[in-house]
Amino acid sequence: MEQGPRGGSRPAEPGPCLSSPRGGEQAALVPLLSAAGAEPGSRMLAVAAVLPAGGCGERMGVPTPKQFCPVLERPLISYTLQAMERACWIKDIIVVVTGENMEAMENIIKKYKHKRISLVEAGVTRHRSIFNGLKALADNQPNSRLSKPEVVIIHDAVRPFFEEDILLKVVTAAKEHGAAGAVRPLVSTVISPSADGCLDHSLERARHRASEMPQAFLFDVIYEAYQQCSDYDLEFGTECLQLALKYCHIKAKLVEGSPDLWKVTYKRDLYAAESIIKERISQEICIVMDTKENEEHISHLLEEVLKTELNHIHVRSQALYNAGSDIQHINLEQCYNFVCVNVKEPDFQETQKLMSMLEESNFSILYSIVVVSVHFLDFKLSSPSQKMESLMCIREFAKKMKKRKILLYGLIINYSQDEQKLQESLRQGAIIIAALIKERNSALIGQLLVA
Amino acid sequence: MEQGPRGGSRPAEPGPCLSSPRGGEQAALVPLLSAAGAEPGSRMLAVAAVLPAGGCGERMGVPTPKQFCPVLERPLISYTLQAMERACWIKDIIVVVTGENMEAMENIIKKYKHKRISLVEAGVTRHRSIFNGLKALADNQPNSRLSKPEVVIIHDAVRPFFEEDILLKVVTAAKEHGAAGAVRPLVSTVISPSADGCLDHSLERARHRASEMPQAFLFDVIYEAYQQCSDYDLEFGTECLQLALKYCHIKAKLVEGSPDLWKVTYKRDLYAAESIIKERISQEICIVMDTKENEEHISHLLEEVLKTELNHIHVRSQALYNAGSDIQHINLEQCYNFVCVNVKEPDFQETQKLMSMLEESNFSILYSIVVVSVHFLDFKLSSPSQKMESLMCIREFAKKMKKRKILLYGLIINYSQDEQKLQESLRQGAIIIAALIKERNSALIGQLLVA
Repeated sequence: MEQGPRGGSRPAEPGPCLSSPRGGEQAALVPLLSAAGAEPGSRMLAVAAVLPAGGCGERMGVPTPKQFCPVLERPLISYTLQAMERACWIKDIIVVVTGENMEAMENIIKKYKHKRISLVEAGVTRHRSIFNGLKALADNQPNSRLSKPEVVIIHDAVRPFFEEDILLKVVTAAKEHGAAGAVRPLVSTVISPSADGCLDHSLERARHRASEMPQAFLFDVIYEAYQQCSDYDLEFGTECLQLALKYCHIKAKLVEGSPDLWKVTYKRDLYAAESIIKERISQEICIVMDTKENEEHISHLLEEVLKTELNHIHVRSQALYNAGSDIQHINLEQCYNFVCVNVKEPDFQETQKLMSMLEESNFSILYSIVVVSVHFLDFKLSSPSQKMESLMCIREFAKKMKKRKILLYGLIINYSQDEQKLQESLRQGAIIIAALIKERNSALIGQLLVA
Repeated sequence: MEQGPRGGSRPAEPGPCLSSPRGGEQAALVPLLSAAGAEPGSRMLAVAAVLPAGGCGERMGVPTPKQFCPVLERPLISYTLQAMERACWIKDIIVVVTGENMEAMENIIKKYKHKRISLVEAGVTRHRSIFNGLKALADNQPNSRLSKPEVVIIHDAVRPFFEEDILLKVVTAAKEHGAAGAVRPLVSTVISPSADGCLDHSLERARHRASEMPQAFLFDVIYEAYQQCSDYDLEFGTECLQLALKYCHIKAKLVEGSPDLWKVTYKRDLYAAESIIKERISQEICIVMDTKENEEHISHLLEEVLKTELNHIHVRSQALYNAGSDIQHINLEQCYNFVCVNVKEPDFQETQKLMSMLEESNFSILYSIVVVSVHFLDFKLSSPSQKMESLMCIREFAKKMKKRKILLYGLIINYSQDEQKLQESLRQGAIIIAALIKERNSALIGQLLVA
């Protein structure tokens, strides 16, 4: 199934900051934001973000608050932080968590090496938590390394799927209008019940929008609004844009967002998040091979078949002997999937070389890495079970690598002299490789599969 | 992760009709509805359902309309029909599809053996499609086998996750109030934009509800409403409850629904649907074994470990020699996962017996069936690769079975004399079995895995 023109939901990837302006609005704003290459004297917009993460996830029906639920073994909030960090023009990211989750949050930041994060203790409601986050940014806090930003983004910890683009849009609009927020069309008709639980009236769907996140505000506007607002608002309110309207008479600019902005609310949303992330990190496969000419032949055959069979996936090959710099290159392009072709004796030479490099690197901090160790054998000359015998050590090796979040599988492909049989084996091999990469199933590590 | 008290989202399972009343409302209604065992002369409520399925799924961003998108290789709408069919007191189910999808829909009904379905051609909008469905049910259609029901349920083709319970609730309420519909709390705040794309006002979240499906109406009420309603309503309206209010002054009873009622709208929802269904059909594992005493020992050890390791999954064992009636029994209890323990020579005897039975049955019409063929071997006495040699025929066998939607995998477990090693192998085997059952990955059929 293909993605629609809006690109569906993409997980956040770390990566370089938005370098080339992609539209009118961004073109205007990027010079204000680009922290790194700014000319001396050029004006930079100071932007911070507040992420309320104090909720208890009661709608999820699970004991763990949803922002801490694991998705591919990593807490959901870490994906949101990863996405936020991509915008390197955001100076500070304030995460607001309950006292009891403070330590867990500190550990998440440490483990996944998140940067620019400050933790603030949550209040008992969402609005009180956001207010606490804003207070930490306000000027008057003693001993704080934080400084008051011009614009503040407010975003949910449980919305990990957004592009830097929408952050730019709401910040730009907030700079101009004082407040801005992402909106989406309504999925269901909204109705108003009467006191006796019957329909009073229904709202015209086309004339209303769902208010989503991110939102952005001139800091002084939203801080003023929170300082003025009533206890009732702090207890029962849900909408920051409404506070800016009510207390500062600022009519927020509404920015149409993409479907990516959805909020992980129910258990099914965790399933969806996991599938989206799996799909995203499976888009790139790197084939690692020795480059001697006669050996190149097999590897390139496999590469061709992989490209044909997995037609939405970017497959590229990489010579291992010059790997020091190449592996760095792979890192930048976010590759989490390796097919390592072993053609030399002893059997595991290539795979072991790759594994040592991956072990030394920190590639697997954010996502597990899949390595499929491929071995060729003519089944007519020798039974695959004999090959298996000599490859059995993969089981122990895989167990060891699993601790480093590297998932190793073995694959023996029939290198038949019969061209048709060879193609069929390669095709079968490609399907198995695709399945291993897509599922990332740690229960099957160390297994020797046969194509 | 555990389900909350509402049970999360469950896929529809065919099965016996609701036999014992589960609550006050149902207790009152069930006698009115029970089609099969009704006493002569007892009053039965005539209920039909209309499922508009003429949409084009533009929000999904895929070319296939979402109701026809495959979920575990079966079109989504088939799951919805399966859920609807569970309520055997629904006499007719009208599916409204576009002319161009009519044939595809007929094939789906045939392939998955859906019953009580009539097809009606869709109009250009949702309301026109529903109206067409109602017209087919109205008295005045010549040559129709359909008859006018007292109550009609309207439900979306893209909401496959609902329990019979909610159908009963809306039908009961419609009988009493003339109209009824399921509602859910709002996930996002709803706002009203001004003409210039800024916030005009936001709605208090607690005072509004999302209108979901199913809905139910006295047939005469909703049919009257559609006959009276304006072209504008038919073109742009989205809410059937609103039509009943506007044209028949019927205030629909709102029934709080469970989170199960969600609508598959975006691509991420397809991912969620697939995960939910996979989880649901993985809840039961049947261990098939020979029952000679000395052999029973190994099988029961495995059973114990499976029960411990997969603690939310119901594991039970089954002797194969008396299988004729037992397999029938398995069918009734919706088991789609078999672990077949082979302890006798030749290697595949037990598995082949099971496979023949499954092949003869129609168990795999709705869901693929996973069969894990388990073989024990003391790795100290004999290498697993030797065993693999003798089991290689599983590859061809699995290919053949795949055509019948039966997914066969092999698993060799180290039957060590060392108690600790044996436990570790069994535990590893259980993890592999759980993974195979959970993923249902057809790329890995015919593989021999080692624990």
